[in-house]
Parts: sequence; C-alpha cells; structure tokens
Amino acid sequence: MVKGLEGKTYEERLKSLGGLVISGIVCPETEPHRNVKRRKHGHRQKRDETRSEIPANLDHTLADTSKPTIVLNPETNEEVLLECINTESSHSCFFKDESVEIYKNLNTPAFATGRLILKPFKEKGHQFVHMDTIAFHVIHGKIIVTLHKTSYYLTTGDYFYVPAGNGYNIRNLLNEESVLLFTQLKKDRPKARSMLLETSSP
Amino acid sequence: MVKGLEGKTYEERLKSLGGLVISGIVCPETEPHRNVKRRKHGHRQKRDETRSEIPANLDHTLADTSKPTIVLNPETNEEVLLECINTESSHSCFFKDESVEIYKNLNTPAFATGRLILKPFKEKGHQFVHMDTIAFHVIHGKIIVTLHKTSYYLTTGDYFYVPAGNGYNIRNLLNEESVLLFTQLKKDRPKARSMLLETSSP
Repeated sequence: MVKGLEGKTYEERLKSLGGLVISGIVCPETEPHRNVKRRKHGHRQKRDETRSEIPANLDHTLADTSKPTIVLNPETNEEVLLECINTESSHSCFFKDESVEIYKNLNTPAFATGRLILKPFKEKGHQFVHMDTIAFHVIHGKIIVTLHKTSYYLTTGDYFYVPAGNGYNIRNLLNEESVLLFTQLKKDRPKARSMLLETSSP
Repeated sequence: MVKGLEGKTYEERLKSLGGLVISGIVCPETEPHRNVKRRKHGHRQKRDETRSEIPANLDHTLADTSKPTIVLNPETNEEVLLECINTESSHSCFFKDESVEIYKNLNTPAFATGRLILKPFKEKGHQFVHMDTIAFHVIHGKIIVTLHKTSYYLTTGDYFYVPAGNGYNIRNLLNEESVLLFTQLKKDRPKARSMLLETSSP
C-alpha cells in the first residue's frame, strides 16, 4: 500500500502523478493485482497492426505501451511515472551514416539499450568507450569484433562486452545487415560531464 | 603503449599476464592493429560446426573465443585478462524449472546478460528485483509483462525494463518458447551482501 494513495483508482493515481490518464485502466488498490486477469471490463489496446494479434481469449487489462508506467521509487517508497516500455514501432534513430544505424530504445541516466545495425560488408570504425561498459548480443549476423587489440569471429547468438577504458571495432562479413543488441552501462559521473558526453554511443 | 610491456609479442604478454598462451596469436606491439587484417600467418580457429563457416577470403588473425581477452584496466593503464566473449556453444544454464530457463552468458561484478526462455503458455512468476535494474528485449515471442501493477502486451522486438525496487512477471502467450534477452545492472553493494545475493537472477 503506497502512502497517501490508499483507496484511489489507477486512473486517479495517474492523475495525481503526472496528469496523465490511460483510458480504460481502472484498478482499485484494494483488489490484488493477481486478480487482474479475471476482470472482464478492460479495454484492449490496438495501436497498430502488430497489436491486433492479441489472442481473443486474453482477458487481461492491458495498458498503452506508449504511456509511462507507474513504478515504485525505492528511495521514497512513492509511486512515480517512468518510461519503462519501448515497442518496435516507436524506436527513434540515434545515429545513422553509410555504415551503421544506432537505435536507443530505452535510455535512462544509468543505462541505454537498443540496436546497432551494420550495413552489408561495412565496419563500425574503431571507437573508445571511455568510462562506460557496453555489452553486445549478436541478434543476427556474422562479424569480426576487435576488442582492444584482439579480433574474434562471432555469429548469431554470441555475446561480448567492451570494458571501460577500451576501444573496439565491429566489421560485418555479410552482404546483408548484421544486427546487434547493445546495453550501455553508464558510469556515474558529475552532471556537467554527463551533459558533455550525452551524445556518446556504442 | 603499455608500461613495461614494450616490444613484447602478444604471446609473451599473455604469458606475463596469466600464463595463458593462445596458439597462433603473435602481434608485435610496434605494429598498429589496423594492419592486422593484412597479415597472412594467422591461424584460423575452427572450434565447432559454426566456426567452420568463416569465409575463405578472411585474412584476419582470429583469436579463440573460449580464452580470456587482453584488455586495458583504465585505473592502472595495465593490460589484464578478462572473459569478454561468450559464444552460443559455451552458454551455461543458470536456472531451470518447468516454466523458465535462464542463461547467464556474461557475468561480471557490474552486470550479467543472457537469455530467459519461457516455456509454452508458462509464466515466470512474480519477482522482485531488489536494488538491481533489469533491461529486457523480446528476441522472439508474444508475452504479457506486468511491471509493478501494470500489464502490457509485448512482442518480438519490444523492450522493457524493471527499475530497482519493483516487482514484475512475464507470461508467455504462445504454444512455443518465448525468448528474451536480459541485462541485469547490479547495484554496487558491499562484498558480503554481494556474496549472499550472487544467486539472484531476472
């Protein structure tokens, strides 16, 4: 039970948190969330083609993925709104040139995650990660990864990470796109420096 | 140029770092790593079926993915050995029951990353992430994610994360496995507590 919010509906709590109201979501706090799946009056979201594939027998109350989520702030034990969801349809391109496309699908002060797409036979170019650490997963492709000074052949399903203070490069061996998922762990840093480095990317 | 290691071959440096020698890797420090691809005497690694697909025209010197990588420690500016690579063939199952399988493919004091496989029509069960933050990417599947108290329908390509101090659940809507990639950002914590929580997982 969250202090000061007892007895309010989800709609009311959303209003009190940020003035946002997600239509159709009414979930009194007195009802355990385990029971949500049994409720029949929820509106299902159909935002685009993909969403319309939700099975007909699904009687969850589903929220709109484009709206922020109510979550707990563990330091204050109060509910806050955070953008915790990102769908394929709402990604924004962070960087693009003739060799790579970088999408940051989730971006918080602590980390960023998204996709790095390498064009056919292109290479990313050597890059230094400064104080961040970047973990990669090869979703699809065949690549040569150079980590500091060592090169590896990696393929679909493989993982690697670049520790802080190291350089790396990725070269696409295919005549089609290679796709990598990255998670950039941002090192805690002073505000001013953080602003300067805000444009850094994998 | 790394202090105290000038003029040594990669093989010699590997020996001085951990007594490990990767056969065939000889890369004098005086030669810029950009030239590595032009060298002809590298041994190609063929560890398993997948590896044998390396194109014949690839004249990189490739290292063995099962061996640790020489990287820089930015605090000391010295080279150290770290396990930065994990291939599909060398994953280890971290947790398994009738509903889920969890693989931690990379695991460091700062983060862990790997795959969470949800069996057909199964749900993970509600879990609290304590002080960690966990980012997820749906590699393949159709799922219902419950984040704190809100449920979302997500499908292949979507992203979500669970902020520290929150609970979540994932339910597989398919009559086949749904596969998620997770990255667990470990909150800095005292050594003793870290040991106790070492078995925590997404």
